[in-house]
Amino acid sequence: MNTVTPSTHERILHQGLALLSQVGLAGVTLGMLADRVGMSKSGLFAHFRSKEDVQIGILTYMGQCARQQVVAPAVQAAEGLPRLQALVQHWLGWAPRAGLPGGCPVAAALFELDDVDGPVRQQVLAMEREWRGLLTQLVRQAITLGHFRHDLDVEQFVWELCGIYLSHHAAQRFLRATDADARAHTAFQALLARAQPPRVRHRRGNASSACPPTRCTRRHPREAQEHH
Amino acid sequence: MNTVTPSTHERILHQGLALLSQVGLAGVTLGMLADRVGMSKSGLFAHFRSKEDVQIGILTYMGQCARQQVVAPAVQAAEGLPRLQALVQHWLGWAPRAGLPGGCPVAAALFELDDVDGPVRQQVLAMEREWRGLLTQLVRQAITLGHFRHDLDVEQFVWELCGIYLSHHAAQRFLRATDADARAHTAFQALLARAQPPRVRHRRGNASSACPPTRCTRRHPREAQEHH
Repeated sequence: MNTVTPSTHERILHQGLALLSQVGLAGVTLGMLADRVGMSKSGLFAHFRSKEDVQIGILTYMGQCARQQVVAPAVQAAEGLPRLQALVQHWLGWAPRAGLPGGCPVAAALFELDDVDGPVRQQVLAMEREWRGLLTQLVRQAITLGHFRHDLDVEQFVWELCGIYLSHHAAQRFLRATDADARAHTAFQALLARAQPPRVRHRRGNASSACPPTRCTRRHPREAQEHH
Repeated sequence: MNTVTPSTHERILHQGLALLSQVGLAGVTLGMLADRVGMSKSGLFAHFRSKEDVQIGILTYMGQCARQQVVAPAVQAAEGLPRLQALVQHWLGWAPRAGLPGGCPVAAALFELDDVDGPVRQQVLAMEREWRGLLTQLVRQAITLGHFRHDLDVEQFVWELCGIYLSHHAAQRFLRATDADARAHTAFQALLARAQPPRVRHRRGNASSACPPTRCTRRHPREAQEHH
């Protein structure tokens, strides 16, 4: 019987996540992973029973990494708009900053697994719903605190924010565009401006700014464009 | 020597495109395609020299289909904003309407091929750049005709529009959401509203409408939401 130690398990997941981010779910097979980790396929079987089991294990591990890299620093910010802004700042381009050589495995899986059914798709679906649920919660907090208007269509806001993330991913990773961060920032500022209460928009006389005066640490779109 | 007839070639591309839309580029191998078409791998070699050659052939064929399904009907609309609106209307969800059982192969390839180099990535890059070039051209026409403001950041507009397309693709195909069309329509209307000349926004007193009075055949966001 093989000895299953936590460190070996962790090493497999770590290598598997790097592999997943580069080649997508189709490339994460027991054989490919065994090669990458430098162990036999039968050795891997002590840890995972099937290809689907490996893929789900790696996706779950990815969720833990994303919580550390994206969510944990964001919850340091004040509730409402500052926290939402911090989350978006840490979300855009999180994968390379987390040491993943490829892009975000969930973003890729949204396009890779649209035509299949089974436990791996269910896992990605659960993770995507949990993520959109967190975004929804932060937007609702911003409404409660008066940072956003009370009649805001929260689901629409989250839907468009996910579009900004996907466009940023495609621009930065596939097109290898150098202005992806600035473009995403401008798009996000416009989305925030539409979400503001009318009095804020009127008082500030600038529909493209939605930062509360004392909290904002992000550059404004015009500044961002000048720097890129 | 095998006889290469145009109809066989067309049939291979047609079946190959259906396969590509379902399984992505990683799944389009000579063996998989031979199975799908019902011919031997050596028979396929009369048409394509390699896996990459097949993939590029199918992508090129996809471009022809997209021009017929998306671009040809759009250019029937008047120049400027009406043509851009028609193009977006035919673009969103074009793949299933074109008879492709899976989603848009280029959208999927933006996430699948971000970490690889080679002729297939170059083909997708060329197609994506051509597509964004067409969008850019239509937005510039809308500026020239006074439908959009002269200081509009055209590249930013196209960048955000591509985000709406990707979010719609993920919502409709992966999340299997029934409100993807309505969400995309609302997002597009908001993007159009930001692109309008100030006098149009002021005169109409409705920042969410960007349709010229006599041309618009699209429903407004509130109507769309009521119907979905």
